[in-house]
Amino acid sequence: MENGSTKWGFFQGNEEPKAASTLTVRDVLATIMENLDGADQRPTIPLGHGDPSAFPCFRTTLVAEDAIVESVKSAKFNCYAPAGGILPARRSVADHLSKHLPYKLSADDVFLTVGANHAIEVIITALARPDANILLPRPGYPLYEARADFSNLEVRHFDLLPEKGWEVDLDAVTALADDKTVAIAIINPGNPCGNVFRYEHLQKVAETARKLGILVIADEVYGHLSFGSNPFVPMGVFGSIAPVLTLGTISKRWIVPGWRLGWIAITDPNGILRKSGGAVPQILENTAECFFSKTVNLLREAADKCYDGISEIPCITFPNKPEGSMSAMVKLNLALLEGIDDDMDFSFKLAKEESVIVLPGVAVGLKNWLRITFAIEPAALEDGLGRIKAFCRRHAKKD
Amino acid sequence: MENGSTKWGFFQGNEEPKAASTLTVRDVLATIMENLDGADQRPTIPLGHGDPSAFPCFRTTLVAEDAIVESVKSAKFNCYAPAGGILPARRSVADHLSKHLPYKLSADDVFLTVGANHAIEVIITALARPDANILLPRPGYPLYEARADFSNLEVRHFDLLPEKGWEVDLDAVTALADDKTVAIAIINPGNPCGNVFRYEHLQKVAETARKLGILVIADEVYGHLSFGSNPFVPMGVFGSIAPVLTLGTISKRWIVPGWRLGWIAITDPNGILRKSGGAVPQILENTAECFFSKTVNLLREAADKCYDGISEIPCITFPNKPEGSMSAMVKLNLALLEGIDDDMDFSFKLAKEESVIVLPGVAVGLKNWLRITFAIEPAALEDGLGRIKAFCRRHAKKD
Repeated sequence: MENGSTKWGFFQGNEEPKAASTLTVRDVLATIMENLDGADQRPTIPLGHGDPSAFPCFRTTLVAEDAIVESVKSAKFNCYAPAGGILPARRSVADHLSKHLPYKLSADDVFLTVGANHAIEVIITALARPDANILLPRPGYPLYEARADFSNLEVRHFDLLPEKGWEVDLDAVTALADDKTVAIAIINPGNPCGNVFRYEHLQKVAETARKLGILVIADEVYGHLSFGSNPFVPMGVFGSIAPVLTLGTISKRWIVPGWRLGWIAITDPNGILRKSGGAVPQILENTAECFFSKTVNLLREAADKCYDGISEIPCITFPNKPEGSMSAMVKLNLALLEGIDDDMDFSFKLAKEESVIVLPGVAVGLKNWLRITFAIEPAALEDGLGRIKAFCRRHAKKD
Repeated sequence: MENGSTKWGFFQGNEEPKAASTLTVRDVLATIMENLDGADQRPTIPLGHGDPSAFPCFRTTLVAEDAIVESVKSAKFNCYAPAGGILPARRSVADHLSKHLPYKLSADDVFLTVGANHAIEVIITALARPDANILLPRPGYPLYEARADFSNLEVRHFDLLPEKGWEVDLDAVTALADDKTVAIAIINPGNPCGNVFRYEHLQKVAETARKLGILVIADEVYGHLSFGSNPFVPMGVFGSIAPVLTLGTISKRWIVPGWRLGWIAITDPNGILRKSGGAVPQILENTAECFFSKTVNLLREAADKCYDGISEIPCITFPNKPEGSMSAMVKLNLALLEGIDDDMDFSFKLAKEESVIVLPGVAVGLKNWLRITFAIEPAALEDGLGRIKAFCRRHAKKD
C-alpha cells in the first residue's frame, strides 16, 4: 500500500459484495470456457447459457424494435423518468398481467426495474431486517442467495423434488419457517428445472404461505414459456390467499434481455402488504400472438429433441420431460463413468474434448446434476447432443 | 396485520432505505409543486429541475438518436451484456476520456452503469466498511449522503466557500480526515453551485488527498459544460498524485438523461487502487463539436440572463457569476423580506403566487440559499426572472 512516501489508506473496500458473489452462473460458465480446446475446429455449442437472443431463430419481433425506434425518434423519452417507471409503461404492464388474473392490477401496483435481476435486488433489500430469514428453492437462481447474503438476510433452503416433477417440498417449507421468516420464493416456469407447476400445487404453496403468515415471491421471468401438459398459471391468481410479489421481464418472452426491462407487480387484492407498507405499451400490447406461439413451439421442439437425445445416453437421465422455460436439469450417474469426479469435472472435460458447454448443477445448488439449455438453433442442439453422447461413450466404465 | 384468522408476519421491511431518502431533491420539488395555485393561468416556470431535455432548444443530436436506432435494428445488442458493459462501449468511453488526460485509459479502466446515480451507488457500496468515513461537499448532491447512510458509511461535510468561487475548504478537509477516511468527493463543474474549479485548485485537492492517503471521487456529470473563464479540467489529470474514480454520463452533455448511461473510470496511472483492489462508440465518437458548442453557448447565455436578472433583485445575490453546469446557488437576504421564514417558505410562496419553481438550498445542504436552474427555454427564463422580481418587490420589507 506504499507509493513513495505516501501511506495509502483505508479504501480496501467492502468485502461483502465479493463474498456474496463467489459462485455465480456466469463465473462458472467463464471458468468452463477456459477449458475449451483452441485446436478444436468444430463450432462450440453453448448449452449452459440463459440467453437465446444471439440465435437467428430466436430474433425478437419487429413490433418491439419499431416501438423503440419510434420512441427514440420522438425525443419524448429522453428525460429523467420516475424511479419506478413512467405511468403509461406501468399501466401497460398492469393491464398485461391483469389479463391472466381474476382481478385488475393498477399502475400503482407495478414498479419497473432494470431487468429482473434488479427486481430481485429491490425485493431482497426491502425485506431484509435483523434476524429475518427467507425460504429459497434448491436448485434455484443464485442471485437470490448472493443478494440475501449481502443484505444479511438468512437463507433457508427447501428442496424441489425431481421425483414429483420438481414440486416444492411443502413439509420441508413448514419445518423451515419460524416467526422470523419473511417470504418464500418460487420460480415458475422453473429455472433451472424446466418444470411448470400445476394449478393445485401453486394453490398449496399459497395456502402454506398463509398458514405461516409470509409472502410469496413469484419469479415468473419465464412466464408463458410453457409447452407441456401444465399450462402456465401466474401465482397472482392466488393473491387473495397470500400476498404475492410477482417478478417479470420482457427478456425471455420477447427475447431481448439486453434491453433491461423488468418489473415487480404487487398481486395482493386484500392489501395485506399495503397495510405495512414510451415503448413499453406498444411492445406489450401490439406483439402478435403468433410471435409468442412460434417461440413456444421452437422451445417445445428443442426440449423434445433434448429429451430424446439424452435418453440415449445411459449415464445422464431426465427425471421428467421439460415443460417450460429454456433449460432443464439432468442427473449424472457417475457410477457409469470412468475418471469423472463430479459435475464440475464433467463440464470441464466436456468443454475441452467436445467444445460443448453445459452448466454444472452445483452452480444452481444441485451437485452432480447438469443444467442443459436447449434454447439454441436446432441443428446446433442436435450436434451438441451427439457430442455429449460420444463423450459419455468414451468415458463409460468398462465392465 | 390481521387478515381473518391469519397473522401476517415479519415482512414490515427494511427501514434503512426509507430513512436514508428523507430529503431528496425530487421530494422537495414535488412538495413545492403541491403549492402551485391551480387558478394561475400563466405557464409554470421550472427553475428547480436538473433536466433540460424537455425543452426543444436542448434536443439531443441526431447522431445519438440514429446510433440507437441502428443498434436496435441490427438485433446484435439484444443479448445479456456483461455487468460492466460491452467491450466496444467501454473502450469508446476510455478513448473519449483519454483525449483530455496525459495518459491513456484502457477499456478495463471503465465500468458502465445505469446512469451516474448508479455509479454513485456502486462506488459507495464498494467503499463502505465498518468505522469508515467519507468527506462530502456542502452544498452537494444528496444521493451521496443517502447511499452512505444506507451502507453505514459515516459522512463528514466540508464546506465549499462562496467567497472563493465555491472552492473546497482544504483546511477543513485536513481537519476532518482521520485514518478511517476512505475518500473525498468533489463535483466539477459544480452541482448545485455552477462553478468550475481552476487547474491549480484541483491539483491542491489531489495533493491533499495524497497527504491524507485517500482517494478522490470526481463527479464530472457536468463535464465540459463550462462557459466562463475557467476551462473544464478533468480530475484524472492529477491521477498520478492521488488515485481518482471519475464519474461521468451522457445525460447532461448529450441531454439524454432518460437513456441511463453512466460510467466509472479509474484514472490511477500508478495503479494504487489496482494493488488493493453498440451505440455508445457512435454516440461518443461521431457527435459533431458544434452540437456541444451550441449547448454550451445556450447555457452561457442563460447563465448571463439569470445573473443579470437576479442582480436587479435586492434580496437575492449571486456570490459569483455561474461558469459551469446548469444551475447555480444564490443567497437569500431574509432581512429584506417581510413574512418569509426561510428558503423553504420562499419556495412554497413563490410557487403559489407566481407559478415559478426553485429549489430551496436546504435540499442540497445550504439553508436560506436557493438553487436556480437556468437550463430552460430563454423566453421562459426571462418570464420567470420577472416573476421572481415581482414576488420579491411585493414581499419587500417597508421601511
